[in-house]
Amino acid sequence: MKEFWSKKAAAITPYVAGEQPKIKNIIKLNTNENPYPPSPKAIEAIKEAANDALRLYPDPQSTIVREAAAALHGVDPENIFCANGSDEALAIAFQAFFDDVVKFPDITYSFYPVWASLYGLVPEIIPLNDDFTIPVKSFLGGCCVIANPNAPTGIPLSLDEIEAIVKAADGVVVIDEAYCDFGGESAVPLVKKYPNVVVIRTLSKSHGLAGLRFGYAIADANLITAMDAIKDSFNSYPIDRLAQAGAAAALADKAYTDNITNIISETRDKYSVILTELGFDVLPSKSNFLFCGHPDAENIMAELRKRGIIVRRFGSERIQDRLRITIGTPEQMDALVNALKEII
Amino acid sequence: MKEFWSKKAAAITPYVAGEQPKIKNIIKLNTNENPYPPSPKAIEAIKEAANDALRLYPDPQSTIVREAAAALHGVDPENIFCANGSDEALAIAFQAFFDDVVKFPDITYSFYPVWASLYGLVPEIIPLNDDFTIPVKSFLGGCCVIANPNAPTGIPLSLDEIEAIVKAADGVVVIDEAYCDFGGESAVPLVKKYPNVVVIRTLSKSHGLAGLRFGYAIADANLITAMDAIKDSFNSYPIDRLAQAGAAAALADKAYTDNITNIISETRDKYSVILTELGFDVLPSKSNFLFCGHPDAENIMAELRKRGIIVRRFGSERIQDRLRITIGTPEQMDALVNALKEII
Repeated sequence: MKEFWSKKAAAITPYVAGEQPKIKNIIKLNTNENPYPPSPKAIEAIKEAANDALRLYPDPQSTIVREAAAALHGVDPENIFCANGSDEALAIAFQAFFDDVVKFPDITYSFYPVWASLYGLVPEIIPLNDDFTIPVKSFLGGCCVIANPNAPTGIPLSLDEIEAIVKAADGVVVIDEAYCDFGGESAVPLVKKYPNVVVIRTLSKSHGLAGLRFGYAIADANLITAMDAIKDSFNSYPIDRLAQAGAAAALADKAYTDNITNIISETRDKYSVILTELGFDVLPSKSNFLFCGHPDAENIMAELRKRGIIVRRFGSERIQDRLRITIGTPEQMDALVNALKEII
Repeated sequence: MKEFWSKKAAAITPYVAGEQPKIKNIIKLNTNENPYPPSPKAIEAIKEAANDALRLYPDPQSTIVREAAAALHGVDPENIFCANGSDEALAIAFQAFFDDVVKFPDITYSFYPVWASLYGLVPEIIPLNDDFTIPVKSFLGGCCVIANPNAPTGIPLSLDEIEAIVKAADGVVVIDEAYCDFGGESAVPLVKKYPNVVVIRTLSKSHGLAGLRFGYAIADANLITAMDAIKDSFNSYPIDRLAQAGAAAALADKAYTDNITNIISETRDKYSVILTELGFDVLPSKSNFLFCGHPDAENIMAELRKRGIIVRRFGSERIQDRLRITIGTPEQMDALVNALKEII
């Protein structure tokens, strides 16, 4: 029954996020969360902001966060756009920069086709190569959105490849760097050279703050102004006082972020070898997950779940025999390996 | 320069929110914030939620908040939709329920025409009566959004009038109750009787939590499902862990909310008389602000500002000679009155 629904609401197929189970004592390797807590400085800043000033609206420009992000990336605050999670930043970029056709890979973040549909765009779906790398040549010209490293493959493009795409584009190129801090090359240096590249970042993975909902965009000031125009036509105050305080503190604590992302990258590389030895076809990942092929993937996922370990599998035909396994702590990864040894 | 902007971004005229000055020691009566702090239970709940679990995504269904709101309003959790501020709830309602023409008054919340424009709708602007009341007959039939009490007038419609509009509608009627807790009649009882009414509420005014960004919708489950479809096509996790904890605690502390809204309503009624005696044409308000006409309004606002008191004036021609004054504490209102006595 869809009585009273708009045509748009009736027509869309929403994105389906990974499960957030309410069961306790599971090993949750299904939604690419960080196994380590956020910076203690971020938690302290949030607690300090939990005061009577909550009666007042937050700063609509999120000034303290834009300053912290600008300092981190060596750009100006006018190059930063703040959002209620990088999903919101991406949704606003889709509205601010795309009018018609937007290119993205067949296997990538499955929210891209949903935004294209919600905002009346025409997706041009580019199949990945057989080895799951992005066919750079097919992305030359037009507008596109590319996750780098790509998800759920984990495979990165080089900065030279990204630059070639930005140079050849007729419009805006959106680079979604949700997983970039785990060994990818960031496209932020291109922001100063090109007026048509938008880099999207999030605190959900590298900063251990998925529960805070904070993402941001880095781009030429003209593009940031377009994103502001959409934001101010939708929701003037998207970032609450607590998230502004926590995000600014987390961005400023680079030493903490570098430490936990390095540990996760090392864990990934170690268990990539171990999972390969167990018979998985593991793609070369520069993210905080491994995309592991196995003819018996569906059954393995079900058996892992019985043992309290949750991983993710996608329905799309090309990747049905693969599991996306988030990198946990070494202890969690050992538990995974032990369970897999039982199952396989 | 709007190079690389989408047609949509280039065409829109964003909403302009009231100023959030960074000056200290001002009396801020310009954006309808609550002069009293939020419930101490809400602040406590936020501090408790500021922990290592922030590394995990929040509950995408905001279950604890939906349960608290449902208990407060005597409905079921399936009748509640949670949003990052009531602006987001309204923006999602515009997308979920309106396809073509949407009616609203010429003088009302100035974000309505912005959402209509962003989402490609045709606004049918109904002029308020000369006494700034809503002409109910003109709202019979079609779809509409009505702020009740209206803003910036503060004048309410009765529940019977709202029911007449809902009954006669061809589609969905959205009732924006941002200011309802200061003496208005809520349309929530209509949700059980009619499949086509959506009530929008916020914690920003009555609960003293403008800085937390939390709003919600109450409606028949079918309409909530439509809003969920839009939300899950835009941003799966709009409410962070801190806002979920704080909002649930604030909604549960009805005694605290009732107390501060009663104090504010009493202050409003007292200073309505005093401002009338000072020569203002004060509209009969059931909100947390007074809309005060004076031939010298523009100058009075400037003079108040010099004295550290900020109020709001709107550009629209019919209301240029009026100031919207948020109800502060009795001490703040006394300071306002003293300043006005100097100025006038």
